[in-house]
Amino acid sequence: MVLVRTRNPLNIGAAARAMSNFGAFDLCLVTPFERAFREAVSAVGAAPLLAKALELDSVEEAVSDCRLVVGTTAIGNRELQHELYSLENAAKKIRRKLATGRVAVLFGSEKTGLTNKELSHCHWLLRIPTREEHRSMNLAQAVAIVAYELSRGGGKPIIAKNQLSAAAADMETLARINETLREALEVSDYIHPRSAGSSEEKLRRMLLRFSLRSADAEVFLGMLHKILCKMRNSK
Amino acid sequence: MVLVRTRNPLNIGAAARAMSNFGAFDLCLVTPFERAFREAVSAVGAAPLLAKALELDSVEEAVSDCRLVVGTTAIGNRELQHELYSLENAAKKIRRKLATGRVAVLFGSEKTGLTNKELSHCHWLLRIPTREEHRSMNLAQAVAIVAYELSRGGGKPIIAKNQLSAAAADMETLARINETLREALEVSDYIHPRSAGSSEEKLRRMLLRFSLRSADAEVFLGMLHKILCKMRNSK
Repeated sequence: MVLVRTRNPLNIGAAARAMSNFGAFDLCLVTPFERAFREAVSAVGAAPLLAKALELDSVEEAVSDCRLVVGTTAIGNRELQHELYSLENAAKKIRRKLATGRVAVLFGSEKTGLTNKELSHCHWLLRIPTREEHRSMNLAQAVAIVAYELSRGGGKPIIAKNQLSAAAADMETLARINETLREALEVSDYIHPRSAGSSEEKLRRMLLRFSLRSADAEVFLGMLHKILCKMRNSK
Repeated sequence: MVLVRTRNPLNIGAAARAMSNFGAFDLCLVTPFERAFREAVSAVGAAPLLAKALELDSVEEAVSDCRLVVGTTAIGNRELQHELYSLENAAKKIRRKLATGRVAVLFGSEKTGLTNKELSHCHWLLRIPTREEHRSMNLAQAVAIVAYELSRGGGKPIIAKNQLSAAAADMETLARINETLREALEVSDYIHPRSAGSSEEKLRRMLLRFSLRSADAEVFLGMLHKILCKMRNSK
């Protein structure tokens, strides 16, 4: 579970406790509001999990070793670039993916949720099916419900036969593809340097929609490198 | 939901918020530790529910109009007089009963849970399936998970994706992508012209695995055209 820009240390402690209750042990905190949360917070039984929680400066670092990145949202269709699943269906997909690699579930800050930039790291989004009239959930309760739903069915994943060879590309390779493609597009004047920031997000979202397999991602990266290399040399 | 001898007013507020999230509107408080909880607590969106919460002096009064009374417990078999169900099965039974009458779910105090006397009002017990090694849950999170599970299957299904933008790319566009990418790879010496035949097939299989959407395919083709154009001009 990745908590992004969490403001209230009590929520971090409560989220850690719920994760421990349901056997999800890896907590990652991206730029939490209060750095001293580890001392400030003492949710029952959460200490071991909090002690080994990672604290990082960017979503990118937090998800780099993951094969699937899922964002959580309270708002149904703010972000039409992403597919949206109910928690129940999302949990099924996540459990399948956990058979072959790590999965990150991102939770935004209490006030604002995840920004568009943070969402651009996600393959797809999940929504906990709350009432239309009262969608906004407490952060730690949302973490608890997601952890509960993920633990459903005892955690024995069913592995399809050739699922391993079809393993999704890790986020680090995708980041390198993104970078190389962006450079090629800049050299070819497809992207203007001044719009590079938004291009990066758009490219990332597009590449995630390609749902590249691990082997294909390596091949594709090799192609792009070669193309970029040629472009640079003939300049 | 009936909260018995709750000590922390924040838990009452948080429980009320989660109940509101999942459409469980009747909160009953049996001898809460702090009587002034209504003023002390301000969980987002929980005010209407808290305002009409009942405050009573005994479990007996709280459950008097119910057809089914269910206790919650973290400990598997403390109380052998009662049948014990996992939350998932318990929720099914509760939903069936709700069709014909009111159901009370009892949550004990944070420290001690429900006493044997309080449990004696229950038809049966439910347990949220936490890890053996860390069973003790935060009260408000337990309420949230029970409310979530009870609401399961009741809502409208979430629409997974925008159908139009998610339509698969047509084969003609894919063929053009294939052709353009192959040319770029030849110009950059990634592919040797004599192996062009087998490359075409490999590329096609890879592009199909990308499962491009229609809109993305057009964008991707545009990128490749621009890159190829640049490469040709600077030759």
